[in-house]
Amino acid sequence: MRMYDIIEKKRDGHELTKEEIYFFIDGYTNGDIPDYQASALLMAIYFEDMTVEERANLTSAMVESGDQIDLSEISGVKVDKHSTGGVGDTTTLILAPLVASVGVPVAKMSGRGLGHTGGTIDKLEAVPGFHVEISNEKFIELVNQNKVAVIGQSGNLTPADKKLYGLRDVTATVNSIPLIASSIMSKKIASGADAIVLDVKTGAGAFMKNLEDAKKLAEAMVTIGNRVGRQTMAVISDMSQPLGYAIGNALEINEAIDTLKGQGPEDLTELCLTLGSQMVVLANKADNMEEARAKLKESIANGEAFEQFKTFLASQGGDASVADHPENMPQAEYKIELPSLSAGTVSKIIADDIGTAAMMLGAGRATKDSEIDLAVGIVLHKKIGDSVKEGEALLTIHANQENVEEVRAKLYDSIVIATENVPAPTLVYDTITK
Amino acid sequence: MRMYDIIEKKRDGHELTKEEIYFFIDGYTNGDIPDYQASALLMAIYFEDMTVEERANLTSAMVESGDQIDLSEISGVKVDKHSTGGVGDTTTLILAPLVASVGVPVAKMSGRGLGHTGGTIDKLEAVPGFHVEISNEKFIELVNQNKVAVIGQSGNLTPADKKLYGLRDVTATVNSIPLIASSIMSKKIASGADAIVLDVKTGAGAFMKNLEDAKKLAEAMVTIGNRVGRQTMAVISDMSQPLGYAIGNALEINEAIDTLKGQGPEDLTELCLTLGSQMVVLANKADNMEEARAKLKESIANGEAFEQFKTFLASQGGDASVADHPENMPQAEYKIELPSLSAGTVSKIIADDIGTAAMMLGAGRATKDSEIDLAVGIVLHKKIGDSVKEGEALLTIHANQENVEEVRAKLYDSIVIATENVPAPTLVYDTITK
Repeated sequence: MRMYDIIEKKRDGHELTKEEIYFFIDGYTNGDIPDYQASALLMAIYFEDMTVEERANLTSAMVESGDQIDLSEISGVKVDKHSTGGVGDTTTLILAPLVASVGVPVAKMSGRGLGHTGGTIDKLEAVPGFHVEISNEKFIELVNQNKVAVIGQSGNLTPADKKLYGLRDVTATVNSIPLIASSIMSKKIASGADAIVLDVKTGAGAFMKNLEDAKKLAEAMVTIGNRVGRQTMAVISDMSQPLGYAIGNALEINEAIDTLKGQGPEDLTELCLTLGSQMVVLANKADNMEEARAKLKESIANGEAFEQFKTFLASQGGDASVADHPENMPQAEYKIELPSLSAGTVSKIIADDIGTAAMMLGAGRATKDSEIDLAVGIVLHKKIGDSVKEGEALLTIHANQENVEEVRAKLYDSIVIATENVPAPTLVYDTITK
Repeated sequence: MRMYDIIEKKRDGHELTKEEIYFFIDGYTNGDIPDYQASALLMAIYFEDMTVEERANLTSAMVESGDQIDLSEISGVKVDKHSTGGVGDTTTLILAPLVASVGVPVAKMSGRGLGHTGGTIDKLEAVPGFHVEISNEKFIELVNQNKVAVIGQSGNLTPADKKLYGLRDVTATVNSIPLIASSIMSKKIASGADAIVLDVKTGAGAFMKNLEDAKKLAEAMVTIGNRVGRQTMAVISDMSQPLGYAIGNALEINEAIDTLKGQGPEDLTELCLTLGSQMVVLANKADNMEEARAKLKESIANGEAFEQFKTFLASQGGDASVADHPENMPQAEYKIELPSLSAGTVSKIIADDIGTAAMMLGAGRATKDSEIDLAVGIVLHKKIGDSVKEGEALLTIHANQENVEEVRAKLYDSIVIATENVPAPTLVYDTITK
């Protein structure tokens, strides 16, 4: 088998066999196939796409390129959730204890990563004492005992994907549905998930700017998952504005607490119920979405979800009292309101730019070595469709610096007030359950 | 400027600016741009093509990537001819003295190369004493004096093309009209040609298997040439069967002599007159094709072309008496006829396979270090459309080995005798003069 022939075959629009895809992935991972042949193939895939069969084989080949986490000692169907990334996306922090409270085992492997705010682990570290440095044995024990635990990523997962992603990033081949879908799915599958729920974001603040592409990506991933034996569902949700009100680390924990108590933002609550229902159904803890949603709502209403969160925090060394006293988490020194410069209806809150403003405050990492300030961030008071008076606060900046002029300017640039009425954007565009 | 943006721009179907193309070519040549980014761009070009402007800029950038031959000391318009490559293509050997005999300066830079037979220089070395190891000064002096001289390739011509071609060869991006056209044209232009005549071959034995692609390539090259200030014309000619009768080195010199004396194969003579007329017109030695053709025919008829050939051989140390006594060139020990196994009409003489058979006899180089046997080769007696009796010789194998069983088998496989009548193929499909 020759890499040349594989490139030519894809270039000419033919379907690659399983053997050809494994030859490519194995050869590229171990260095036998050079970058320049891999990038030619990636560009050919960009133009010629991949069939359902090819995508599944590419995913499996990448899964098998490295370690695979074995969660078989955890009883029950392990359901993982993945979001394609947005601003103020607090869903994981809420979903983990929420679905655990109705019996779904949540064995969450998470990272820190770069971005507008920290990753799930960073956010959780806003809870004094909370830590993820636990052994694999302890991790599994905790999930079996409490239904939920979080651990940092370890092991050599999907090295093929890491290497390929690095190459795609410098050859303008990131933006390809089959490549994105197989990259995401390979990581989830290698992490040991039995079933997967995907939150595909669409809108100005998301990687998929338009609904059509988001649908294609969601369908691609659901098809891959089901084809390789991992039941998968997806939600396509709005990211034209930030989700919920809070963007920041401690601030998002605070918002997660509110939501688990039934007092969270409407959109965040609704998305968690939608995603959570899919997780519950996939874990066989409900027969259908309606039943699952009812269970989740009940768990919030009767306080079980909130209790589960406290148990979870305590089990990993966290001070569970913050659930009742969020002020015990890091607090920013300055709280600066941003008054609206005119009266009208909020018509735009550009998610990306709000995220960048949070990052300017120190909420996220620009480089791997940046320090995160867990206290800072932004709390919105208005969302798209809300009416606002002149001088009324659009949001509050939580800063550890007195001078926030640059951040204010950025925020004013990213919020538009219209004189006519503007409807709130649709939150959930679509759900894909097969 | 970033290579990433250039790849993305081409990937998205936009036209690259002159600056972007030079940035790519200069950066790739000097090693600043890595292979993996270059191959991604090449594959994007494969799919998205290049505009007329982009092709011209790519060609110029490659020309300027290395040395350029200065032929300004040669008076007159220097016209070069290039063939995209075929089997038994003796045209250069004939055209050089033929057009020189009517006043067109021919300053031929030629190579040895790999292939079914040797290159032009190898073939000429079948003439005892002939050599191309002459200084640039001597070369220019000879052209000014005799109108024709041949020299081996020297200097660092189009290093960008060399490096890119090497990359295309391993990334399945050879077969792209803009890349082929700019590669060929950059080499011709760097070699100092003022005007260029292209012989684009089509058919089973050619790189361009079908007429449509051959036309596209011819038009692409003519457009590039004229756009960068080198008047260019093209002929699209048949390579479904070998051109002329002879395939071999001394054998093709012999055939060239016959043709210069007006006794050559009909197809070879016709193609030389067609290509030659374009050369004569481009060199301003005739006002139109008809006048040019008449001049060339007259030069053959009155012996001037033949005399020019002898002068040319002698001027570079060759034994000009071979023109009258071809038997003084290397002769093969065995001459083995291949009798037709049935009666009928020749319907196929697969050019590629006949070439391979000649190579098996030792007429060409398989690797750079192979030794060529100047004497061996194949002389056809029948061409497509000719009728043949059972047992009548289809061709003669000129070998320096007694056992030619493998070659015979190869030849029988590549010649088809039909029972019905078959027309001779069209020789010249098209001429492109603008």
